[in-house]
Amino acid sequence: MSLEKIPGQVRVIIENVQPEVDGGRYPAKRTVGERVDVTADIFADGHDHVRADVLYKKAGTREWHRTPMVELGNDTWRASFYTTEKTDYVFTVEAWIDHLETWHDGIKKKAQAMLNVKLELLEGAILLERVAGKKEKELIQLATKFRDDKKYLENVEYVQSVEFNELVHKHPLREFENRYKKELVIVVETPKALFSTWYELFPRSAGASGKHGTFKDVIKLLPRVSAMGFDVLYLPPIHPIGKVNRKGKNNNVRAKEGEPGSPWAIGSDEGGHKAIHAELGTLDDYKKLIAEAKKIGIDIALDLAFQCAPDHPYVKEHPEWFKQRPDGSIQYAENPPKKYQDIYPFNFECEDWQGLWNELKSVILYWVEQGVTIFRVDNPHTKPIPFWEWAIAEVHKQHPDVIFLSEAFTRPRIMASLAKSGFTQSYTYFTWRVSKQELMEYMNELVYGPSRNYFRPNFWPNTPDILPYHLQHQGENMFIIRLALAATLSSSYGIYGPPYEFYDNNPVPGKEEYMDSEKYEIKEFNWRRTNRMTDIISIINKARKEHKALQSTWNIQFCSIENDALLAYLKFTDDLSSIILVIVNLDQHNNQHGYVQLPKHVLKLGDKVNVKLHDLMTDEYYTWTQEWNYVELNPHKIPFHLFKLDIHESNM
Amino acid sequence: MSLEKIPGQVRVIIENVQPEVDGGRYPAKRTVGERVDVTADIFADGHDHVRADVLYKKAGTREWHRTPMVELGNDTWRASFYTTEKTDYVFTVEAWIDHLETWHDGIKKKAQAMLNVKLELLEGAILLERVAGKKEKELIQLATKFRDDKKYLENVEYVQSVEFNELVHKHPLREFENRYKKELVIVVETPKALFSTWYELFPRSAGASGKHGTFKDVIKLLPRVSAMGFDVLYLPPIHPIGKVNRKGKNNNVRAKEGEPGSPWAIGSDEGGHKAIHAELGTLDDYKKLIAEAKKIGIDIALDLAFQCAPDHPYVKEHPEWFKQRPDGSIQYAENPPKKYQDIYPFNFECEDWQGLWNELKSVILYWVEQGVTIFRVDNPHTKPIPFWEWAIAEVHKQHPDVIFLSEAFTRPRIMASLAKSGFTQSYTYFTWRVSKQELMEYMNELVYGPSRNYFRPNFWPNTPDILPYHLQHQGENMFIIRLALAATLSSSYGIYGPPYEFYDNNPVPGKEEYMDSEKYEIKEFNWRRTNRMTDIISIINKARKEHKALQSTWNIQFCSIENDALLAYLKFTDDLSSIILVIVNLDQHNNQHGYVQLPKHVLKLGDKVNVKLHDLMTDEYYTWTQEWNYVELNPHKIPFHLFKLDIHESNM
Repeated sequence: MSLEKIPGQVRVIIENVQPEVDGGRYPAKRTVGERVDVTADIFADGHDHVRADVLYKKAGTREWHRTPMVELGNDTWRASFYTTEKTDYVFTVEAWIDHLETWHDGIKKKAQAMLNVKLELLEGAILLERVAGKKEKELIQLATKFRDDKKYLENVEYVQSVEFNELVHKHPLREFENRYKKELVIVVETPKALFSTWYELFPRSAGASGKHGTFKDVIKLLPRVSAMGFDVLYLPPIHPIGKVNRKGKNNNVRAKEGEPGSPWAIGSDEGGHKAIHAELGTLDDYKKLIAEAKKIGIDIALDLAFQCAPDHPYVKEHPEWFKQRPDGSIQYAENPPKKYQDIYPFNFECEDWQGLWNELKSVILYWVEQGVTIFRVDNPHTKPIPFWEWAIAEVHKQHPDVIFLSEAFTRPRIMASLAKSGFTQSYTYFTWRVSKQELMEYMNELVYGPSRNYFRPNFWPNTPDILPYHLQHQGENMFIIRLALAATLSSSYGIYGPPYEFYDNNPVPGKEEYMDSEKYEIKEFNWRRTNRMTDIISIINKARKEHKALQSTWNIQFCSIENDALLAYLKFTDDLSSIILVIVNLDQHNNQHGYVQLPKHVLKLGDKVNVKLHDLMTDEYYTWTQEWNYVELNPHKIPFHLFKLDIHESNM
Repeated sequence: MSLEKIPGQVRVIIENVQPEVDGGRYPAKRTVGERVDVTADIFADGHDHVRADVLYKKAGTREWHRTPMVELGNDTWRASFYTTEKTDYVFTVEAWIDHLETWHDGIKKKAQAMLNVKLELLEGAILLERVAGKKEKELIQLATKFRDDKKYLENVEYVQSVEFNELVHKHPLREFENRYKKELVIVVETPKALFSTWYELFPRSAGASGKHGTFKDVIKLLPRVSAMGFDVLYLPPIHPIGKVNRKGKNNNVRAKEGEPGSPWAIGSDEGGHKAIHAELGTLDDYKKLIAEAKKIGIDIALDLAFQCAPDHPYVKEHPEWFKQRPDGSIQYAENPPKKYQDIYPFNFECEDWQGLWNELKSVILYWVEQGVTIFRVDNPHTKPIPFWEWAIAEVHKQHPDVIFLSEAFTRPRIMASLAKSGFTQSYTYFTWRVSKQELMEYMNELVYGPSRNYFRPNFWPNTPDILPYHLQHQGENMFIIRLALAATLSSSYGIYGPPYEFYDNNPVPGKEEYMDSEKYEIKEFNWRRTNRMTDIISIINKARKEHKALQSTWNIQFCSIENDALLAYLKFTDDLSSIILVIVNLDQHNNQHGYVQLPKHVLKLGDKVNVKLHDLMTDEYYTWTQEWNYVELNPHKIPFHLFKLDIHESNM
């Protein structure tokens, strides 16, 4: 390689800059106010001192902000910055050999060893002048003083002083800097992307005494949902339901006369993905619901299920978007030998894929125009991932705050890929993580693994599709335990509400499905009833709103506790202004007790511990003066502690 | 993003293709004949079948070779190919959804469930025609047959046959393929890069009775070195030794009259890096040594120490290549408050860095022209890593077989970076890994960690700079154990020979340095003496030459053995034509015994074990008929087994 093309005097190497998702192919994600920890491996030949800065700025602006990196050991360096605006940030790393710092380290050691450092002072003078350029008078004067033999002793003392140490630190001598080749992107999204509290109900069951519920009925339920502290109300599809091959109660292949069918079999002669199921009301009713909900801080989430019933208008208007079989029929969904004749999937490989993509994008934009800001996307993993990457980016161009929740319960790489491609939040395996070990491993993977930079979990103990085995035939304690875990481990969580709060524990035998599932029939609920569960939900969600520590998933630290039935974890803000300690009894039947350890390094506790605890569930107060503290939880009262911690000043 | 720019029908995602070093910034390394395992994460939306190929070719050629990948689980795929030539290879990955295979899987399941598959056969016919294009008559005929209603039963049977399964497998239906964005590079180097056996001696100690040794004396020692089975003879620097500030015996600051100085203090009025120390002989003598060695399969390795004694000609001719101090003197090496006044380092940040780089490159090329093909590079981590990347690439352009061994005992990232930048082999931390746990962890890190693709270890139990604590004041058993480990764990190893084979165990107290180090004085050795060590070295090195399993570092599998003082490992070729089992007693004092487990999956052993073992050290034969087998090792005889394994056919 021609030497002209090499910056040969640059000796510092910068590698492995993080966060970097797939070599920069995808941006890393944050929300407004979140910290970005930038790390890199930085080193050079020899023994000279290396220094490094993180450079960051808002995309499209010119001026870099600089923040100095600190070495963590073994040539790994770190610096952090906070995102303050909802925009893209770019960052990179710059590093250099700092001869002023190297020199300072050397002259200190020599001075301490009582060696003569006259020559070193002259060298220091030259370096100070190099740092100063022509501007810094103070440094020029200092250089002159270093050259003054009469001030030798004074100078020797000064180079060993704290004051001069600070001066050297303040004035990096940047020469032959290396700049990391890439500028990496951080997408900063709305805080709701990270902190949201979801409630799901079927609007058709919102009515009274067996009648088909309507949007107006849902409006009447808003106070209840709000009182429980939810800020997202998610309704399954609200579009006309297919009449051809309609499914009956308990997934019967043929519906009987008058059965309502599954709302996920979208489209009929009454309309498709931009229409509203007439029995629910009108578009105006739906917009009214959105508006009323918004008034009390609730967003209405729309279900985006990109598939068609056989009588969906698309099937006639755009047969080219579906797979034609040799007999002229259209290919229904199947998982051989099983057949799903009520669902026609789109053929994303069709020749008019561009028409299809544009139409689906127009569906999303149509609902955004009606006021929808949150989409729960049904089975995104059965549509091409590149489609989502494009469609979400297109929507975000005009409406950057729109939230997309990926309902993909599938293999890890695919869930990760959807998240990288733009989904704001994702359903998770939490639904099946039950034991202490499983929960800790999974949380540590989510929070400290590479997916932390793009995969935002949303924890659901149940969904209309999933009544997990550990809830089947179980009493209310188990439902409460799972709710408490979801709501405090993850800053976004949700429940498929009515069956959850009323403890529906009755499965199709041998399956993780609800018996008499609401997916295929209208259910009746006593919407005035409150119970132990609704009380607990209300208190927890209030705590989530009031305590910043519960508004992030990324700030967890598990605590040692000598009992496998007890799970303890701390959540805290960087500045420790909000600290929550959660201790959950995972055993729904028995009292469990044990000693929990306060992580002193995290809480910056000194030798004398003095921590006030306020249990937000029971409103009881405690004071802990030891590192290890006794706790006991009776699942028949409240199976968990939700402590707010106050650390007494003398600790710090 | 404009839809025109998106290949919207491509649904397969390819991620995390390996081997990829720093995102493709550096090539991965192999030697001729080595296997390349390519892995990737590959997946698509939905349930369609994905297939994938690795595409590879020699750099600069046009035609890709294809080899099909196999899924290992969780969407990770793998395929392997062998490098057959000493050149660069490029590879990438291609993947697609194979509708023929998806269809085949579906029709089989439906047929097995006794469903009517008439329509499916017609669909199969269409797919077969798509595979066939216009060429494959067989497939066209088959399609016609699938359309023939009269052959329905025959067709249904056929699609379930093994024969048709093979046909589907043989005829991928590649549509809407995705190709990984990068073409990654594999550098394929000479086999000696991986398999080499080093012996180090100071030529000045090669003479008899206290006289300064010469190259001619070294020629006389070649039969001895060869008889022990070494194929690289490495001599410390052979250039004129500085006279100014020369170091004396035991690193004394001032040499006494007549002391020879350290050969690493290079250069005097007699010449510099291209000259030869007169007392060793002439350039012709050196070339004679190279030629004589080559005749018996030994390469002479030159020490490349890019630093200067104060009287090196460069200092006068190119003062601009060194750091000037304010008093006009030249900066010597220091690690404050320590001073190394006999060494001037180059200032790689000087303005004429290009002149310096070119001169140093010319030094390497000069010696290559004299016949040197192997360089042991002294302290490469005190010269800029970008310099090495450039210099090694420049030399390899003309002389691709030249081997560079990096003598960097420093922090892991820097050792890794030097290896990535082009060094063929590297010194390692083996020198300080002693316990069973340490050795296993370190080997597994080297062989199964990411550095496997660029860092080729060369194991040294000692060097002139290092007499490790565990050899100090120890008896010969410990020396033999460490030799056996180095020679069988790593396919490249070396010893600083004479002090090693004669068990020099005498350190500078408290340091890992030799007392009366040969670095500062001429030593006398009885070059006719053989002993237990030289016998063992000869047998081991003979085994290394005869058994391919010992010629790679990458083929190790540790075996369970119920004794922490016993370390057991298998080394084997892919085809199991060469299998070596090594069992080492790490306890130099006591008999140790235990049961070792044969890894049946690796050896493809069935239920009846029948393995013949030939101990290459003792020439004894054993037969093992169990998975677990008793071994006992007396360190005072031979502290290790070196078994050649023969697996009886009936096992396989």
